[in-house]
Amino acid sequence: MNSVKLHEMKKVEIIVRGEDLEFVLDLLEKAGVSGYTIFHNLSGKGSHGFHEGHLLFNEEDTLVMVVSVMPDKIVEAVLEGITPFLNKHSGVVFVSSVMVSRLAKFGKTEVSAGGGS
Amino acid sequence: MNSVKLHEMKKVEIIVRGEDLEFVLDLLEKAGVSGYTIFHNLSGKGSHGFHEGHLLFNEEDTLVMVVSVMPDKIVEAVLEGITPFLNKHSGVVFVSSVMVSRLAKFGKTEVSAGGGS
Amino acid sequence: MNSVKLHEMKKVEIIVRGEDLEFVLDLLEKAGVSGYTIFHNLSGKGSHGFHEGHLLFNEEDTLVMVVSVMPDKIVEAVLEGITPFLNKHSGVVFVSSVMVSRLAKFGKTEVSAGGGS
Repeated sequence: MNSVKLHEMKKVEIIVRGEDLEFVLDLLEKAGVSGYTIFHNLSGKGSHGFHEGHLLFNEEDTLVMVVSVMPDKIVEAVLEGITPFLNKHSGVVFVSSVMVSRLAKFGKTEVSAGGGS
Repeated sequence: MNSVKLHEMKKVEIIVRGEDLEFVLDLLEKAGVSGYTIFHNLSGKGSHGFHEGHLLFNEEDTLVMVVSVMPDKIVEAVLEGITPFLNKHSGVVFVSSVMVSRLAKFGKTEVSAGGGS
Repeated sequence: MNSVKLHEMKKVEIIVRGEDLEFVLDLLEKAGVSGYTIFHNLSGKGSHGFHEGHLLFNEEDTLVMVVSVMPDKIVEAVLEGITPFLNKHSGVVFVSSVMVSRLAKFGKTEVSAGGGS
């Protein structure tokens, strides 16, 4: 029915303090992502999982969210890089499934997407 | 294959007028969410479901989106609180599945996530 | 268990240059969406799938994201309109599944949502 063919990819959303944006962008580029979008001037609150009772984010912090869509194999590289960082710094990472119409915008090669999750 | 284990949680996105932000944050805290992120200065348009023909948002309104990741049982409490509010006020709520790497950041206890929506 | 019944709909996220916002809003209205939210002042980077080596977005561009929740049949119309545009302009579109509590806010009629991916 669909005249536009859709392919499943993963959307990775990373929310960190503004001062940690460069670390995240470097990590994404080293992992091989083909692009990302940055949402600026967010705020937030939360308890830090590691040090109970500490705030994850202070209400005065300015946060950023970096969103990137990528194939599964790059998600693994991103998570392996970001997880140790989030053990020591404030921030969260979410992974979800999205459909995209043009694979060429999200990875160097056509991948067999759609199998997982 | 994944060296970082992922757990399924729910992402709740609530978009309301800026003046209603405090109501939403209070509701989330009472429901027991462990954190949230706020996106400011959004705009939007839409028809109001209850009063046909009325605008959901005026083009001049400044909207906010509050995003929070939580286990299923907290989603129910949030929806029970927000639904009566959205019957009378402008706004929308979306629930989707996301994977997170560290449960401790999103709920007080390890929950058996992943069973399904 | 849930006292609030949820229905599956599709969330469409479109990220384009700020100068292309009006095109996207016109397209959504012609496709019959009942509402949308706009995120302003985003930034980003990426390679253009069509012209290898070109940047999808320049780091100086100001981007916008338009988010809209709609039934499947409207997604098709939106994708048929946006895909030719994205072949010539910078931008990306993601489609994902979300649950909403009140169908009336997202489409003119009650649709049988929930069957599909």
